[in-house]
Amino acid sequence: MTENSLQQIMNPRSIVFFGASNNILTMGTAQLLNILKEGYQGEVFAVHPTEEKVLGLKTYKSVSALPRSVDLAVMVLPTRIVPKILSECGRKGIKSAIIISGGFREVGEVGEELQDEIVSVARKHGIRFLGPNCIGVLNAHRKFNSTWFPYGQEPGRIGLASQSGTYVCHTFGHLSRLGIRLSQAISVGNEADIDLVEAIEYLANDTQTRVIALYIEGIRKGREFVKLASEITTAKPIVALYVGGSKVGARASYSHTAALSGPDELYDGVFRQAGVIRAQTIEELFDLSWALATQPLPKGKEVAIVTNSGGVGVSMADACIRWRLDVPRLSESTQKRIREFIPHTASSQNPVDLTFMIDVDAFFGRITKALLEDPEINGILIYGVFGPLAFKKMKELAGDLLDIPFEQIELVQRDVLKKFIGLLQRYGKPVLGCSFLGRDDSIIALLQDSGIPFYPSPERAVKAMAALFQYARIRARRKG
Amino acid sequence: MTENSLQQIMNPRSIVFFGASNNILTMGTAQLLNILKEGYQGEVFAVHPTEEKVLGLKTYKSVSALPRSVDLAVMVLPTRIVPKILSECGRKGIKSAIIISGGFREVGEVGEELQDEIVSVARKHGIRFLGPNCIGVLNAHRKFNSTWFPYGQEPGRIGLASQSGTYVCHTFGHLSRLGIRLSQAISVGNEADIDLVEAIEYLANDTQTRVIALYIEGIRKGREFVKLASEITTAKPIVALYVGGSKVGARASYSHTAALSGPDELYDGVFRQAGVIRAQTIEELFDLSWALATQPLPKGKEVAIVTNSGGVGVSMADACIRWRLDVPRLSESTQKRIREFIPHTASSQNPVDLTFMIDVDAFFGRITKALLEDPEINGILIYGVFGPLAFKKMKELAGDLLDIPFEQIELVQRDVLKKFIGLLQRYGKPVLGCSFLGRDDSIIALLQDSGIPFYPSPERAVKAMAALFQYARIRARRKG
Repeated sequence: MTENSLQQIMNPRSIVFFGASNNILTMGTAQLLNILKEGYQGEVFAVHPTEEKVLGLKTYKSVSALPRSVDLAVMVLPTRIVPKILSECGRKGIKSAIIISGGFREVGEVGEELQDEIVSVARKHGIRFLGPNCIGVLNAHRKFNSTWFPYGQEPGRIGLASQSGTYVCHTFGHLSRLGIRLSQAISVGNEADIDLVEAIEYLANDTQTRVIALYIEGIRKGREFVKLASEITTAKPIVALYVGGSKVGARASYSHTAALSGPDELYDGVFRQAGVIRAQTIEELFDLSWALATQPLPKGKEVAIVTNSGGVGVSMADACIRWRLDVPRLSESTQKRIREFIPHTASSQNPVDLTFMIDVDAFFGRITKALLEDPEINGILIYGVFGPLAFKKMKELAGDLLDIPFEQIELVQRDVLKKFIGLLQRYGKPVLGCSFLGRDDSIIALLQDSGIPFYPSPERAVKAMAALFQYARIRARRKG
Repeated sequence: MTENSLQQIMNPRSIVFFGASNNILTMGTAQLLNILKEGYQGEVFAVHPTEEKVLGLKTYKSVSALPRSVDLAVMVLPTRIVPKILSECGRKGIKSAIIISGGFREVGEVGEELQDEIVSVARKHGIRFLGPNCIGVLNAHRKFNSTWFPYGQEPGRIGLASQSGTYVCHTFGHLSRLGIRLSQAISVGNEADIDLVEAIEYLANDTQTRVIALYIEGIRKGREFVKLASEITTAKPIVALYVGGSKVGARASYSHTAALSGPDELYDGVFRQAGVIRAQTIEELFDLSWALATQPLPKGKEVAIVTNSGGVGVSMADACIRWRLDVPRLSESTQKRIREFIPHTASSQNPVDLTFMIDVDAFFGRITKALLEDPEINGILIYGVFGPLAFKKMKELAGDLLDIPFEQIELVQRDVLKKFIGLLQRYGKPVLGCSFLGRDDSIIALLQDSGIPFYPSPERAVKAMAALFQYARIRARRKG
């Protein structure tokens, strides 16, 4: 097997950048800034026709002037000069490129000719390239971010390949607010050379990536996609959002990246055949991937809900049934264990509704342990973690009126939670949570950063749990 | 017509509070804190058997010791003493109460007897009460918050009635992060006296409330609900989330608030008959209400999408079709107007895809104006507002390398947006946006606070637009 074309693009030891200046309002400048300042360890050169320095970096007038060749060329240049610069890169011995510039096939006939031209230049020089009309890539494990938005958080286990650049950069802030982390992200753009299928293949082989998330407007190589995805999904889950199914969606996506769309039902069939889990929205694409990237798979569809809010318990239970999970009444022996720790107004049936109870030790230690040890329960949904945030807010209101030891609350909770996280690892059952506080609460952030997704709504947590079960079934079926 | 029973509960001139101490870990203390410190202007008394002062407030040993009667009693007391205290309140001449304590009908037989007892005490003294087993109320316009979570933001136009207390307080932080504001919120609990139907009636008559949002586990008075909702929805939209439809949901909701649930299809029929818009998730309940609380209704289902991200444009277009909105190709004359201001790589068809373009003046001033003036377009979906946040993040990376005038960017944008907001008011067409930056970006916060919802995902913005059109049709049908 030849090395995947993206190997070098995602892991370059050296880069030459075209199209950055000292004006932050141009996209190229922001992109070079991220490459330079987000921790990338390789060598970076900048080419600029007039500026002496760009972002503090000495520039070269042209690629031919570089002291040596590099692994990767990144270009954000006016459309018309791309073929010429690409050709110069070829002559310098550069074998990989990211062409960010737009104005090619997606704009019609003139662009089509230009796109054909860069393909033939690339073939001539043996260059493999991503784009044109893409936003570039992120390799979070190497802190290499060629997009224009800072990634700004730790690497994760979700590998993303997208026919939209937005979902590979605008979403970074959104994801970090939610606590969702990426391993790799690839914006494929017009796919004039490297396409979605190759990107999927790269992510399949990337050991940092545990789940592949796809944003699809239209697959160019249907047969290859099905064959490859079918192989991958026996070992690694794939979640896909497809949006080209309607007539308007198709028109919009054609003018976006010139991809060819097909009817929704066709894609439903393709995904089913290949064992791909279909997401319905961009939020869902990340939500489901998050659970799949962090949780063990459930052995059955029976879940327990533990909550200190009745309403969230009912919402979760209802969503479980809607998405084909079971919420069985707990066995007498498990209920007996749980009843020791809960108030008389609480319910031990399932949902386990603790009512207003903030004893994290009982919540996470003993009650969750009873559920983890129940052989009839294959997954747990949690609501009711309140770290220091609420108390901090109360302290702001209370001023000197009350002593609210929120720092101490946090310390005690951290201690309990560390044990809890250890507990989870012993039982190998998936645990997902919901919190309306989000990462503003440091305890929620701690849980998320320890690999336990907490979603901003009960239904989103349930749907992610359903995806875990869906993938468990897919894998069982495929393994025969 | 007699005055609605909630009028006094939601607008008390004076309150007596039972069950607060100086320990913030008890719910009552947190609740009294919010009453005292979130800006409520009425008189507040506290009753406590042993403490001299609670939260700085001089206490009374019993309600009989108060210098005069009050409008409202709020109690967070051990279940068994509630009937006695309620009776004492009655003897003092108090006519309204919020009973937060749980342990009544929702826990079985013993609780049922106690619940019957408080009902008969209340009847005897002519007391109307909310609860038991509720979280209390919020009247944001009067800064009266009797729940245990601080509300902490400006009042809005969404009136919420909920059979779960969680959605009337845990969600406050979540909503303020999204920019969604409430006018009133009512947790009805076990509905032993005042029920959901009365809460809806109160919200219907409240002039601060433009849309009624309902969280329902089971409606006790089906016929009254349909009759009342049918009347209200001719003038004010109602959005409802119903979660008691499955067997498990029903079991969970019974042990939660002892409400009786019915099959999902039954509720579908009830909502359709009454002109109520059904939400599928708690996020959707607030999302749809947000649009209905702030936007004019569209005259037809044709929307224009304006975006600087192709991917978001396609996602929005696809979601429009899924939820039965139209995204027609724009007329030649409108396209001609738009093409003046956009790059050659951009598309003027619809979605109007501006590609990478950050000229807010063109975006908000001229392009949106062309769409507002197009008689074939009845609503606008926007993506692509980037205020100072991204630039701030870049400045953090760049340090001294670059001068990034993000404060100036913000000033210019504020200016443009103020004009934009004025423009919107002239045309009376709904405008909804999507941003992955959220309120961390001050320009998004400004737009939201000016009454233009920006949702955290393209599909959520589209679904809210679809709800506007759905309600426009409901209203047209009902008015005949």
